[in-house]
Amino acid sequence: MRTVMVGANPRGKAIAAVLGASESGLQQADLVVLCVEDYAQIPELPPGPDVVNLTSGTSEQAVEAGIRFGARYLDGALMAHPEHVGRPETVLVYSGSREVFDRHSELLARLGRTTYLGPDPGTASLYDAAMLNFAWATLIGYLQTATLLGTASVRAETFTPLLTDWLKSTVVDVISDYAGQIDAGRYPGDEEWLELDAPLMRHLITATEQRGLDSALPRLIESLTARGIAAGRGAESFASLVEVIRGGGPRPATT
Amino acid sequence: MRTVMVGANPRGKAIAAVLGASESGLQQADLVVLCVEDYAQIPELPPGPDVVNLTSGTSEQAVEAGIRFGARYLDGALMAHPEHVGRPETVLVYSGSREVFDRHSELLARLGRTTYLGPDPGTASLYDAAMLNFAWATLIGYLQTATLLGTASVRAETFTPLLTDWLKSTVVDVISDYAGQIDAGRYPGDEEWLELDAPLMRHLITATEQRGLDSALPRLIESLTARGIAAGRGAESFASLVEVIRGGGPRPATT
Repeated sequence: MRTVMVGANPRGKAIAAVLGASESGLQQADLVVLCVEDYAQIPELPPGPDVVNLTSGTSEQAVEAGIRFGARYLDGALMAHPEHVGRPETVLVYSGSREVFDRHSELLARLGRTTYLGPDPGTASLYDAAMLNFAWATLIGYLQTATLLGTASVRAETFTPLLTDWLKSTVVDVISDYAGQIDAGRYPGDEEWLELDAPLMRHLITATEQRGLDSALPRLIESLTARGIAAGRGAESFASLVEVIRGGGPRPATT
Repeated sequence: MRTVMVGANPRGKAIAAVLGASESGLQQADLVVLCVEDYAQIPELPPGPDVVNLTSGTSEQAVEAGIRFGARYLDGALMAHPEHVGRPETVLVYSGSREVFDRHSELLARLGRTTYLGPDPGTASLYDAAMLNFAWATLIGYLQTATLLGTASVRAETFTPLLTDWLKSTVVDVISDYAGQIDAGRYPGDEEWLELDAPLMRHLITATEQRGLDSALPRLIESLTARGIAAGRGAESFASLVEVIRGGGPRPATT
Protein backbone atom coordinates (compact mmCIF):
# COMPACT_ATOMS: atom_id res chain seq x y z
CA MET A 1 0.00 0.00 0.00
CA ARG A 2 1.63 3.20 -1.15
CA THR A 3 0.30 6.45 0.36
CA VAL A 4 1.28 9.75 -1.25
CA MET A 5 0.72 13.12 0.42
CA VAL A 6 0.01 16.27 -1.61
CA GLY A 7 0.30 19.43 0.48
CA ALA A 8 3.34 21.25 1.80
CA ASN A 9 1.56 23.56 4.30
CA PRO A 10 2.04 22.93 8.05
CA ARG A 11 -1.05 20.73 8.28
CA GLY A 12 0.00 18.70 5.25
CA LYS A 13 3.49 18.16 6.65
CA ALA A 14 2.07 17.08 10.04
CA ILE A 15 -0.28 14.61 8.33
CA ALA A 16 2.51 13.19 6.13
CA ALA A 17 4.71 12.69 9.18
CA VAL A 18 2.02 10.81 11.13
CA LEU A 19 1.01 8.65 8.15
CA GLY A 20 4.57 8.00 7.01
CA ALA A 21 3.39 9.14 3.57
CA SER A 22 5.74 9.86 0.69
CA GLU A 23 5.54 13.27 -0.98
CA SER A 24 6.37 11.87 -4.42
CA GLY A 25 5.41 8.92 -6.64
CA LEU A 26 1.85 9.86 -7.52
CA GLN A 27 1.82 7.44 -10.47
CA GLN A 28 2.34 4.44 -8.17
CA ALA A 29 0.00 5.59 -5.36
CA ASP A 30 -2.79 3.41 -3.96
CA LEU A 31 -4.00 6.29 -1.79
CA VAL A 32 -3.52 10.04 -2.30
CA VAL A 33 -4.08 12.32 0.71
CA LEU A 34 -4.67 15.97 -0.18
CA CYS A 35 -4.24 18.92 2.20
CA VAL A 36 -3.53 22.06 0.17
CA GLU A 37 -4.34 25.73 0.80
CA ASP A 38 -7.53 25.75 -1.24
CA TYR A 39 -9.40 23.64 -3.76
CA ALA A 40 -7.91 25.51 -6.74
CA GLN A 41 -4.52 24.03 -5.81
CA ILE A 42 -5.66 20.41 -6.06
CA PRO A 43 -3.56 18.93 -8.92
CA GLU A 44 -4.55 16.54 -11.66
CA LEU A 45 -4.32 12.98 -10.35
CA PRO A 46 -3.71 9.80 -12.34
CA PRO A 47 -6.70 7.43 -12.49
CA GLY A 48 -6.80 4.61 -9.99
CA PRO A 49 -5.90 5.61 -6.41
CA ASP A 50 -8.33 6.32 -3.61
CA VAL A 51 -8.47 10.03 -2.74
CA VAL A 52 -8.84 11.43 0.81
CA ASN A 53 -9.13 15.22 0.78
CA LEU A 54 -8.47 17.16 4.00
CA THR A 55 -8.31 20.58 2.27
CA SER A 56 -10.51 23.23 3.95
CA GLY A 57 -13.35 24.53 1.79
CA THR A 58 -17.08 24.78 1.31
CA SER A 59 -19.57 21.92 0.99
CA GLU A 60 -20.10 22.94 -2.63
CA GLN A 61 -16.38 22.58 -3.39
CA ALA A 62 -16.38 19.14 -1.76
CA VAL A 63 -19.39 18.08 -3.81
CA GLU A 64 -17.63 19.24 -7.00
CA ALA A 65 -14.49 17.30 -6.02
CA GLY A 66 -16.72 14.27 -5.45
CA ILE A 67 -18.01 14.60 -9.02
CA ARG A 68 -14.45 15.02 -10.33
CA PHE A 69 -12.93 12.04 -8.50
CA GLY A 70 -16.00 9.81 -8.48
CA ALA A 71 -16.62 6.76 -6.33
CA ARG A 72 -13.08 6.67 -4.92
CA TYR A 73 -13.45 10.08 -3.19
CA LEU A 74 -13.61 10.67 0.56
CA ASP A 75 -13.79 14.21 1.90
CA GLY A 76 -12.54 15.02 5.37
CA ALA A 77 -12.24 17.88 7.84
CA LEU A 78 -9.52 18.21 10.45
CA MET A 79 -10.57 20.31 13.44
CA ALA A 80 -7.17 21.22 14.91
CA HIS A 81 -3.90 23.05 14.64
CA PRO A 82 -1.00 21.20 12.97
CA GLU A 83 0.58 20.23 16.28
CA HIS A 84 -2.60 18.38 17.34
CA VAL A 85 -2.45 15.98 14.37
CA GLY A 86 -1.98 12.43 15.62
CA ARG A 87 -3.37 12.93 19.13
CA PRO A 88 -6.20 10.53 20.05
CA GLU A 89 -8.53 13.38 21.08
CA THR A 90 -8.10 15.31 17.79
CA VAL A 91 -11.37 15.23 15.86
CA LEU A 92 -11.56 14.36 12.15
CA VAL A 93 -14.83 13.82 10.30
CA TYR A 94 -15.31 12.23 6.88
CA SER A 95 -18.08 11.97 4.31
CA GLY A 96 -18.25 10.50 0.81
CA SER A 97 -17.16 6.99 -0.13
CA ARG A 98 -17.85 4.53 2.69
CA GLU A 99 -15.60 1.98 0.90
CA VAL A 100 -12.61 4.35 0.94
CA PHE A 101 -13.26 5.16 4.62
CA ASP A 102 -13.42 1.46 5.54
CA ARG A 103 -10.42 0.48 3.41
CA HIS A 104 -8.16 3.04 5.14
CA SER A 105 -9.75 3.22 8.58
CA GLU A 106 -6.66 1.97 10.42
CA LEU A 107 -4.43 4.46 8.65
CA LEU A 108 -6.86 7.36 9.21
CA ALA A 109 -7.23 6.45 12.90
CA ARG A 110 -3.55 7.41 13.34
CA LEU A 111 -4.48 11.07 12.71
CA GLY A 112 -6.99 11.24 15.58
CA ARG A 113 -10.56 10.32 16.40
CA THR A 114 -12.43 9.64 13.14
CA THR A 115 -16.17 9.71 12.48
CA TYR A 116 -17.96 8.89 9.22
CA LEU A 117 -20.91 11.26 8.67
CA GLY A 118 -22.53 9.83 5.52
CA PRO A 119 -22.23 9.47 1.74
CA ASP A 120 -22.61 13.16 0.76
CA PRO A 121 -19.06 14.52 0.26
CA GLY A 122 -20.31 17.97 1.35
CA THR A 123 -21.26 16.96 4.91
CA ALA A 124 -17.71 16.96 6.32
CA SER A 125 -17.12 20.54 5.12
CA LEU A 126 -20.45 21.65 6.54
CA TYR A 127 -19.36 20.08 9.81
CA ASP A 128 -16.10 22.01 9.57
CA ALA A 129 -17.95 25.31 9.16
CA ALA A 130 -20.41 24.39 11.91
CA MET A 131 -17.61 23.55 14.37
CA LEU A 132 -15.73 26.75 13.53
CA ASN A 133 -18.95 28.64 14.21
CA PHE A 134 -19.16 26.95 17.62
CA ALA A 135 -15.51 27.70 18.42
CA TRP A 136 -15.78 31.36 17.38
CA ALA A 137 -19.00 31.87 19.36
CA THR A 138 -17.41 30.31 22.45
CA LEU A 139 -14.20 32.30 22.03
CA ILE A 140 -15.91 35.63 21.37
CA GLY A 141 -18.03 34.96 24.47
CA TYR A 142 -14.82 34.35 26.39
CA LEU A 143 -13.24 37.59 25.13
CA GLN A 144 -16.37 39.57 26.05
CA THR A 145 -16.32 38.04 29.55
CA ALA A 146 -12.61 38.87 29.91
CA THR A 147 -13.23 42.53 29.04
CA LEU A 148 -16.09 42.75 31.57
CA LEU A 149 -14.00 41.30 34.42
CA GLY A 150 -11.05 43.36 33.26
CA THR A 151 -13.01 46.49 34.24
CA ALA A 152 -12.91 45.17 37.87
CA SER A 153 -9.17 44.45 37.52
CA VAL A 154 -9.67 40.69 37.61
CA ARG A 155 -6.84 39.14 35.57
CA ALA A 156 -7.72 36.62 32.85
CA GLU A 157 -5.35 34.05 34.35
CA THR A 158 -7.23 34.36 37.68
CA PHE A 159 -10.74 33.64 36.43
CA THR A 160 -10.00 31.45 33.40
CA PRO A 161 -9.32 28.15 35.25
CA LEU A 162 -12.63 28.63 37.09
CA LEU A 163 -14.37 29.39 33.82
CA THR A 164 -12.93 26.43 31.89
CA ASP A 165 -13.78 24.02 34.74
CA TRP A 166 -17.33 25.37 34.73
CA LEU A 167 -17.43 25.00 30.92
CA LYS A 168 -16.27 21.38 31.10
CA SER A 169 -18.85 20.40 33.75
CA THR A 170 -22.00 22.54 34.01
CA VAL A 171 -22.08 24.01 30.49
CA VAL A 172 -21.29 20.65 28.85
CA ASP A 173 -24.13 19.07 30.88
CA VAL A 174 -26.51 21.74 29.60
CA ILE A 175 -25.36 21.20 25.99
CA SER A 176 -25.89 17.44 26.28
CA ASP A 177 -29.38 18.05 27.66
CA TYR A 178 -30.14 20.46 24.79
CA ALA A 179 -29.11 17.80 22.22
CA GLY A 180 -32.00 15.60 23.36
CA GLN A 181 -34.39 18.55 23.34
CA ILE A 182 -33.40 19.51 19.78
CA ASP A 183 -33.81 15.98 18.43
CA ALA A 184 -37.19 15.68 20.16
CA GLY A 185 -38.31 19.16 19.05
CA ARG A 186 -39.50 19.83 22.63
CA TYR A 187 -37.88 22.37 24.95
CA PRO A 188 -39.25 22.02 28.50
CA GLY A 189 -38.42 25.04 30.64
CA ASP A 190 -38.14 23.08 33.89
CA GLU A 191 -34.90 24.68 35.08
CA GLU A 192 -34.53 27.81 32.99
CA TRP A 193 -36.79 29.46 30.48
CA LEU A 194 -36.64 32.44 28.14
CA GLU A 195 -38.71 34.78 30.34
CA LEU A 196 -36.43 33.98 33.30
CA ASP A 197 -33.31 34.73 31.22
CA ALA A 198 -34.52 37.97 29.61
CA PRO A 199 -34.11 40.33 32.63
CA LEU A 200 -30.65 38.86 33.33
CA MET A 201 -29.69 39.65 29.72
CA ARG A 202 -30.88 43.22 30.29
CA HIS A 203 -28.61 43.41 33.40
CA LEU A 204 -25.72 42.15 31.29
CA ILE A 205 -26.26 44.77 28.59
CA THR A 206 -26.47 47.53 31.21
CA ALA A 207 -23.29 46.31 32.94
CA THR A 208 -21.51 46.11 29.57
CA GLU A 209 -22.54 49.55 28.34
CA GLN A 210 -21.94 51.28 31.69
CA ARG A 211 -18.35 50.07 31.44
CA GLY A 212 -17.93 51.46 27.90
CA LEU A 213 -17.66 48.05 26.24
CA ASP A 214 -19.08 46.93 22.89
CA SER A 215 -22.47 45.30 23.59
CA ALA A 216 -23.20 43.74 20.18
CA LEU A 217 -22.90 40.16 21.49
CA PRO A 218 -25.18 40.54 24.55
CA ARG A 219 -27.63 42.51 22.40
CA LEU A 220 -27.73 39.69 19.83
CA ILE A 221 -28.46 37.15 22.58
CA GLU A 222 -31.25 39.35 23.98
CA SER A 223 -32.70 39.97 20.53
CA LEU A 224 -32.93 36.24 19.68
CA THR A 225 -34.50 35.63 23.09
CA ALA A 226 -37.05 38.42 22.54
CA ARG A 227 -37.97 36.84 19.20
CA GLY A 228 -38.42 33.48 20.95
CA ILE A 229 -40.69 35.05 23.58
CA ALA A 230 -42.66 36.88 20.86
CA ALA A 231 -43.17 33.51 19.13
CA GLY A 232 -44.80 32.13 22.27
CA ARG A 233 -41.79 30.29 23.70
CA GLY A 234 -41.31 32.35 26.89
CA ALA A 235 -41.80 29.32 29.16
CA GLU A 236 -39.51 27.11 27.07
CA SER A 237 -35.78 26.55 27.54
CA PHE A 238 -33.02 28.53 25.82
CA ALA A 239 -32.65 25.55 23.44
CA SER A 240 -35.96 26.59 21.82
CA LEU A 241 -34.00 29.38 20.08
CA VAL A 242 -33.03 26.77 17.45
CA GLU A 243 -36.52 27.41 16.12
CA VAL A 244 -35.82 31.15 15.88
CA ILE A 245 -32.50 30.52 14.08
CA ARG A 246 -34.24 28.15 11.66
CA GLY A 247 -36.38 31.00 10.45
CA GLY A 248 -39.09 30.74 13.04
CA GLY A 249 -42.38 30.81 11.19
CA PRO A 250 -45.48 30.18 13.28
CA ARG A 251 -44.74 27.55 15.89
CA PRO A 252 -46.09 24.06 15.32
CA ALA A 253 -48.80 22.78 17.62
CA THR A 254 -47.37 20.69 20.44
CA THR A 255 -48.26 17.01 20.25
CA MET B 1 -23.72 28.65 65.32
CA ARG B 2 -27.26 29.14 64.04
CA THR B 3 -27.69 29.55 60.28
CA VAL B 4 -31.01 30.82 58.94
CA MET B 5 -32.00 30.65 55.28
CA VAL B 6 -34.24 33.29 53.70
CA GLY B 7 -35.54 32.23 50.29
CA ALA B 8 -38.17 29.68 49.31
CA ASN B 9 -37.33 29.44 45.60
CA PRO B 10 -35.76 26.21 44.25
CA ARG B 11 -32.20 27.54 44.69
CA GLY B 12 -32.92 28.70 48.24
CA LYS B 13 -34.40 25.32 49.17
CA ALA B 14 -31.41 23.48 47.70
CA ILE B 15 -29.00 25.71 49.63
CA ALA B 16 -30.92 25.29 52.90
CA ALA B 17 -30.89 21.51 52.48
CA VAL B 18 -27.10 21.36 51.90
CA LEU B 19 -26.34 23.77 54.76
CA GLY B 20 -28.84 22.23 57.16
CA ALA B 21 -30.12 25.78 57.68
CA SER B 22 -33.34 26.59 59.49
CA GLU B 23 -35.98 28.67 57.69
CA SER B 24 -37.10 30.42 60.88
CA GLY B 25 -35.55 32.04 63.93
CA LEU B 26 -34.04 35.18 62.38
CA GLN B 27 -33.74 36.86 65.79
CA GLN B 28 -31.33 34.18 67.06
CA ALA B 29 -29.31 33.83 63.84
CA ASP B 30 -25.51 34.07 63.75
CA LEU B 31 -25.53 33.85 59.96
CA VAL B 32 -28.33 34.72 57.52
CA VAL B 33 -28.10 33.31 54.00
CA LEU B 34 -30.28 35.12 51.45
CA CYS B 35 -31.40 33.71 48.10
CA VAL B 36 -34.62 35.44 47.03
CA GLU B 37 -36.05 36.25 43.61
CA ASP B 38 -34.71 39.80 43.48
CA TYR B 39 -33.19 42.42 45.75
CA ALA B 40 -36.56 44.08 46.45
CA GLN B 41 -37.59 40.94 48.34
CA ILE B 42 -34.72 41.09 50.83
CA PRO B 43 -36.40 41.57 54.24
CA GLU B 44 -35.39 43.74 57.16
CA LEU B 45 -32.84 41.87 59.26
CA PRO B 46 -32.13 42.25 62.98
CA PRO B 47 -28.73 43.77 63.75
CA GLY B 48 -25.95 41.35 64.55
CA PRO B 49 -25.70 38.33 62.23
CA ASP B 50 -23.32 37.96 59.31
CA VAL B 51 -25.12 38.18 55.94
CA VAL B 52 -24.28 36.08 52.88
CA ASN B 53 -26.39 37.07 49.88
CA LEU B 54 -26.71 34.66 46.93
CA THR B 55 -29.60 36.58 45.31
CA SER B 56 -29.04 37.29 41.58
CA GLY B 57 -28.76 40.96 40.70
CA THR B 58 -26.56 43.73 39.38
CA SER B 59 -23.26 44.94 40.80
CA GLU B 60 -25.00 48.19 41.74
CA GLN B 61 -27.61 46.33 43.81
CA ALA B 62 -24.85 44.39 45.56
CA VAL B 63 -22.98 47.59 46.35
CA GLU B 64 -26.19 49.10 47.81
CA ALA B 65 -26.75 45.98 49.93
CA GLY B 66 -23.15 46.32 51.14
CA ILE B 67 -23.93 49.87 52.29
CA ARG B 68 -27.14 48.68 53.99
CA PHE B 69 -25.62 45.72 55.85
CA GLY B 70 -22.19 47.18 56.43
CA ALA B 71 -19.04 45.30 57.41
CA ARG B 72 -20.85 42.00 57.99
CA TYR B 73 -21.92 41.68 54.33
CA LEU B 74 -20.65 39.11 51.83
CA ASP B 75 -22.14 38.99 48.36
CA GLY B 76 -22.06 35.77 46.37
CA ALA B 77 -23.01 34.34 43.00
CA LEU B 78 -24.00 30.75 42.37
CA MET B 79 -23.35 29.62 38.80
CA ALA B 80 -25.62 26.56 38.58
CA HIS B 81 -29.08 25.06 38.52
CA PRO B 82 -30.61 24.09 41.89
CA GLU B 83 -29.74 20.40 41.48
CA HIS B 84 -26.03 21.27 41.13
CA VAL B 85 -25.88 22.88 44.58
CA GLY B 86 -23.52 20.91 46.81
CA ARG B 87 -21.47 19.27 44.06
CA PRO B 88 -17.71 19.87 44.40
CA GLU B 89 -17.44 21.17 40.80
CA THR B 90 -20.22 23.76 41.22
CA VAL B 91 -18.72 27.25 41.09
CA LEU B 92 -19.58 29.96 43.65
CA VAL B 93 -17.78 33.28 43.84
CA TYR B 94 -17.86 35.81 46.68
CA SER B 95 -16.86 39.42 47.22
CA GLY B 96 -17.29 41.82 50.12
CA SER B 97 -16.28 41.09 53.73
CA ARG B 98 -13.17 38.90 53.87
CA GLU B 99 -13.89 38.25 57.58
CA VAL B 100 -17.35 36.86 56.86
CA PHE B 101 -15.90 34.71 54.06
CA ASP B 102 -13.19 33.32 56.32
CA ARG B 103 -15.50 32.79 59.31
CA HIS B 104 -17.90 30.63 57.27
CA SER B 105 -15.52 29.11 54.74
CA GLU B 106 -16.12 25.51 55.85
CA LEU B 107 -19.87 25.95 55.69
CA LEU B 108 -19.74 27.70 52.30
CA ALA B 109 -17.45 24.98 50.91
CA ARG B 110 -20.34 22.53 51.28
CA LEU B 111 -22.19 24.36 48.48
CA GLY B 112 -19.40 23.85 45.90
CA ARG B 113 -16.09 25.31 44.85
CA THR B 114 -15.72 28.77 46.41
CA THR B 115 -13.49 31.64 45.33
CA TYR B 116 -13.09 35.03 47.02
CA LEU B 117 -12.73 37.81 44.42
CA GLY B 118 -12.04 40.87 46.58
CA PRO B 119 -13.57 43.43 48.96
CA ASP B 120 -15.94 45.19 46.50
CA PRO B 121 -19.39 43.60 47.04
CA GLY B 122 -20.18 44.31 43.35
CA THR B 123 -17.47 42.04 41.90
CA ALA B 124 -19.32 38.76 42.48
CA SER B 125 -22.39 40.03 40.60
CA LEU B 126 -20.23 41.29 37.75
CA TYR B 127 -18.68 37.83 37.63
CA ASP B 128 -22.19 36.35 37.55
CA ALA B 129 -23.15 38.52 34.56
CA ALA B 130 -19.82 37.81 32.86
CA MET B 131 -20.22 34.03 33.29
CA LEU B 132 -23.81 34.13 32.05
CA ASN B 133 -22.55 36.04 29.01
CA PHE B 134 -20.02 33.26 28.40
CA ALA B 135 -22.62 30.51 28.83
CA TRP B 136 -25.13 32.20 26.54
CA ALA B 137 -22.52 32.84 23.84
CA THR B 138 -21.39 29.20 23.99
CA LEU B 139 -24.97 27.90 24.00
CA ILE B 140 -26.17 30.14 21.17
CA GLY B 141 -23.11 29.00 19.19
CA TYR B 142 -24.13 25.42 19.91
CA LEU B 143 -27.72 26.04 18.77
CA GLN B 144 -26.50 27.71 15.56
CA THR B 145 -24.20 24.73 14.89
CA ALA B 146 -27.08 22.32 15.52
CA THR B 147 -29.31 24.09 12.99
CA LEU B 148 -26.53 24.03 10.36
CA LEU B 149 -25.92 20.29 10.76
CA GLY B 150 -29.67 19.73 10.99
CA THR B 151 -29.94 20.85 7.36
CA ALA B 152 -27.77 17.80 6.47
CA SER B 153 -29.98 15.57 8.66
CA VAL B 154 -27.22 15.04 11.24
CA ARG B 155 -28.92 14.47 14.60
CA ALA B 156 -27.79 16.56 17.58
CA GLU B 157 -27.19 13.43 19.62
CA THR B 158 -24.81 12.16 16.90
CA PHE B 159 -22.48 15.17 16.72
CA THR B 160 -22.81 16.55 20.28
CA PRO B 161 -20.46 14.07 22.05
CA LEU B 162 -17.83 14.84 19.39
CA LEU B 163 -18.39 18.55 19.87
CA THR B 164 -18.27 18.51 23.69
CA ASP B 165 -15.07 16.41 23.65
CA TRP B 166 -13.53 18.92 21.24
CA LEU B 167 -14.71 21.77 23.48
CA LYS B 168 -13.15 20.18 26.58
CA SER B 169 -9.77 19.61 24.89
CA THR B 170 -8.89 21.82 21.91
CA VAL B 171 -11.15 24.82 22.64
CA VAL B 172 -10.21 24.88 26.34
CA ASP B 173 -6.51 24.81 25.34
CA VAL B 174 -7.10 27.81 23.08
CA ILE B 175 -8.95 29.69 25.86
CA SER B 176 -6.12 29.05 28.33
CA ASP B 177 -3.63 30.33 25.77
CA TYR B 178 -5.75 33.45 25.17
CA ALA B 179 -5.78 34.20 28.95
CA GLY B 180 -2.02 34.72 28.86
CA GLN B 181 -2.27 36.84 25.70
CA ILE B 182 -4.95 39.07 27.26
CA ASP B 183 -2.98 39.64 30.48
CA ALA B 184 0.16 40.40 28.45
CA GLY B 185 -1.71 42.65 25.97
CA ARG B 186 0.07 40.82 23.12
CA TYR B 187 -1.71 38.57 20.61
CA PRO B 188 0.82 36.70 18.46
CA GLY B 189 -0.78 35.16 15.37
CA ASP B 190 1.53 32.15 15.24
CA GLU B 191 -1.16 29.53 14.67
CA GLU B 192 -4.19 31.51 13.58
CA TRP B 193 -4.69 35.15 12.79
CA LEU B 194 -7.60 37.39 11.83
CA GLU B 195 -6.82 37.53 8.10
CA LEU B 196 -6.67 33.72 8.02
CA ASP B 197 -10.04 33.48 9.78
CA ALA B 198 -11.92 36.09 7.74
CA PRO B 199 -12.50 34.04 4.51
CA LEU B 200 -13.61 31.04 6.61
CA MET B 201 -16.16 33.32 8.31
CA ARG B 202 -17.39 34.34 4.86
CA HIS B 203 -17.83 30.61 3.95
CA LEU B 204 -19.79 30.14 7.15
CA ILE B 205 -22.15 33.04 6.40
CA THR B 206 -22.71 31.76 2.87
CA ALA B 207 -23.40 28.22 4.12
CA THR B 208 -25.78 29.60 6.76
CA GLU B 209 -27.75 31.86 4.43
CA GLN B 210 -27.92 29.32 1.58
CA ARG B 211 -29.68 27.01 4.02
CA GLY B 212 -32.22 29.69 5.03
CA LEU B 213 -30.91 30.09 8.59
CA ASP B 214 -30.54 33.27 10.65
CA SER B 215 -26.97 34.53 10.16
CA ALA B 216 -26.82 37.25 12.84
CA LEU B 217 -24.27 35.35 14.96
CA PRO B 218 -21.77 34.54 12.17
CA ARG B 219 -22.20 38.10 10.85
CA LEU B 220 -21.38 39.54 14.28
CA ILE B 221 -18.21 37.41 14.46
CA GLU B 222 -17.19 38.55 10.96
CA SER B 223 -17.95 42.18 11.76
CA LEU B 224 -15.79 42.23 14.91
CA THR B 225 -13.00 40.51 12.94
CA ALA B 226 -13.27 43.09 10.15
CA ARG B 227 -12.97 45.85 12.76
CA GLY B 228 -9.87 44.15 14.17
CA ILE B 229 -8.30 43.92 10.71
CA ALA B 230 -9.20 47.57 10.00
CA ALA B 231 -7.43 48.50 13.26
CA GLY B 232 -4.22 46.90 12.00
CA ARG B 233 -4.53 43.56 13.80
CA GLY B 234 -4.90 41.28 10.74
CA ALA B 235 -1.77 39.27 11.61
CA GLU B 236 -2.73 38.95 15.29
CA SER B 237 -4.70 36.15 16.92
CA PHE B 238 -8.47 36.10 17.42
CA ALA B 239 -7.79 37.07 21.07
CA SER B 240 -6.86 40.56 19.86
CA LEU B 241 -10.61 41.21 19.45
CA VAL B 242 -10.65 42.05 23.18
CA GLU B 243 -9.24 45.38 22.04
CA VAL B 244 -12.15 45.88 19.63
CA ILE B 245 -14.69 45.01 22.35
CA ARG B 246 -12.98 47.44 24.74
CA GLY B 247 -13.82 50.25 22.38
CA GLY B 248 -10.78 49.97 20.19
CA GLY B 249 -9.32 53.44 19.82
CA PRO B 250 -6.02 53.69 17.97
CA ARG B 251 -3.83 50.72 18.85
CA PRO B 252 -0.96 51.25 21.28
CA ALA B 253 2.56 50.95 19.91
CA THR B 254 4.04 47.50 20.53
CA THR B 255 6.86 47.44 23.06
